[in-house]
Amino acid sequence: MKKPLHILKIGGRLIEEEHTLDALLTQFAGWEEPKILVHGGGKEAGRLSARLGIPVKMHQGRRITDADTLKVVTMVYGGLFNKKLVSRLQALGCNALGLSGADGNSMLARRRTSSDVDYGLVGDVTRVNTDLISGLLGMGLVPVFCALSHDGQGQMLNTNADTIATEWAIGMAGTHSVRLTYCFDKPGVLADAEDDSSVIPALDLQGYQRMRESGAIHTGMLPKLENAFRALAHGVEAVRLGGIEAIHSHDSGTRIVP
Amino acid sequence: MKKPLHILKIGGRLIEEEHTLDALLTQFAGWEEPKILVHGGGKEAGRLSARLGIPVKMHQGRRITDADTLKVVTMVYGGLFNKKLVSRLQALGCNALGLSGADGNSMLARRRTSSDVDYGLVGDVTRVNTDLISGLLGMGLVPVFCALSHDGQGQMLNTNADTIATEWAIGMAGTHSVRLTYCFDKPGVLADAEDDSSVIPALDLQGYQRMRESGAIHTGMLPKLENAFRALAHGVEAVRLGGIEAIHSHDSGTRIVP
Repeated sequence: MKKPLHILKIGGRLIEEEHTLDALLTQFAGWEEPKILVHGGGKEAGRLSARLGIPVKMHQGRRITDADTLKVVTMVYGGLFNKKLVSRLQALGCNALGLSGADGNSMLARRRTSSDVDYGLVGDVTRVNTDLISGLLGMGLVPVFCALSHDGQGQMLNTNADTIATEWAIGMAGTHSVRLTYCFDKPGVLADAEDDSSVIPALDLQGYQRMRESGAIHTGMLPKLENAFRALAHGVEAVRLGGIEAIHSHDSGTRIVP
Repeated sequence: MKKPLHILKIGGRLIEEEHTLDALLTQFAGWEEPKILVHGGGKEAGRLSARLGIPVKMHQGRRITDADTLKVVTMVYGGLFNKKLVSRLQALGCNALGLSGADGNSMLARRRTSSDVDYGLVGDVTRVNTDLISGLLGMGLVPVFCALSHDGQGQMLNTNADTIATEWAIGMAGTHSVRLTYCFDKPGVLADAEDDSSVIPALDLQGYQRMRESGAIHTGMLPKLENAFRALAHGVEAVRLGGIEAIHSHDSGTRIVP
């Protein structure tokens, strides 16, 4: 029988509002099964860029990462947020250990090349080091990943945190029974993007494709849902999206089903 | 027989000059014995504070760490420099893994209290988690520590990097034959602070006390030397201070002797 593993991705406002973050980390720390936390950086990277006079460049909702912006996200994701989360989890008795993709060569990535736009220092994950993480989990540690990978040639790369959580879930699914939860600002996938009470309890690929074609899904949700269905298609046992309620109840939020 | 362990502390200009840093990391990566790197943050924290309009407060050469300054050092030490060093070491085939004191609860500290001045969020190390580091070394990993500890209650604390290197050397000396090298901007302890060719090849406690009393030692060197003699008095096999030459030759720099 495969060992259980629960992977939680947190992002957005959740990690910026102190009260919400405390509630969320308390829940996470209480989970008894082996677990991994993956976090984004919220809006802090944008705020710090603004204070430093570094222009924020976006293309179709994605940040373009020049050298100065990479410094900012390395500081905010790898330093400020990662150490904040790790130190708070430690205070809750959870033996957290923060990691970027460079640490222990945990996540190798290839710099993204695209014919239409240069995203700069952005990486697409090519390999997750499952032996390392199995070793750390075996020591009773709880890996806490920030949204940074590396190229193995000395270059850090900015990498989407939803994708990182997905890659870990798929990578660990060979040896673990993996549950993956994406926790974000909304209570789940909404039938009506304007109505928080319209959570869809279970969404299958057909239903998703229908909703996508009709434009019912907020464009910001599309990459998250692509990741969610990819995880399910690659051996991840259970995939869920939701707000903080989805962390303490397996019945809330949106369950992704085949 | 105890296993060997080499601990290298780097700081000052060394980690800010790209050419010097590359040479230094190449040497370090080539060491075959188990090893630990400890780094400070150079002048970058001060520069970032200035750009953000955060006043730098010092007392007798020590930085006073208010909440804003702690954010800056967490970003610079824990994010920017730690990930830069780790990713470059990875490119050199050295399986580095970055750590603050919160990660894996590696270094617990007590916030410094002093009757005359409030240093703010500064920690004095009370415990190093040698089991964690033995476990990581056993996995073939190379710990890279930044100058941050935590109090176990959710608070990160700014902590002197020389002291961190010393605490690790002393902590690991129970199970390892530890060599400790402090690498900095000068070629060693100088008989004449103005003359870089006046390196003292070996310094014992008596000689140090004499020099200190006569004022021959630059005040900035005093805490480093206190740490060096403390390490030697607590079971560390070999202690050396020097410039980058001290990394590739055991004969250069200043050897600390009983």
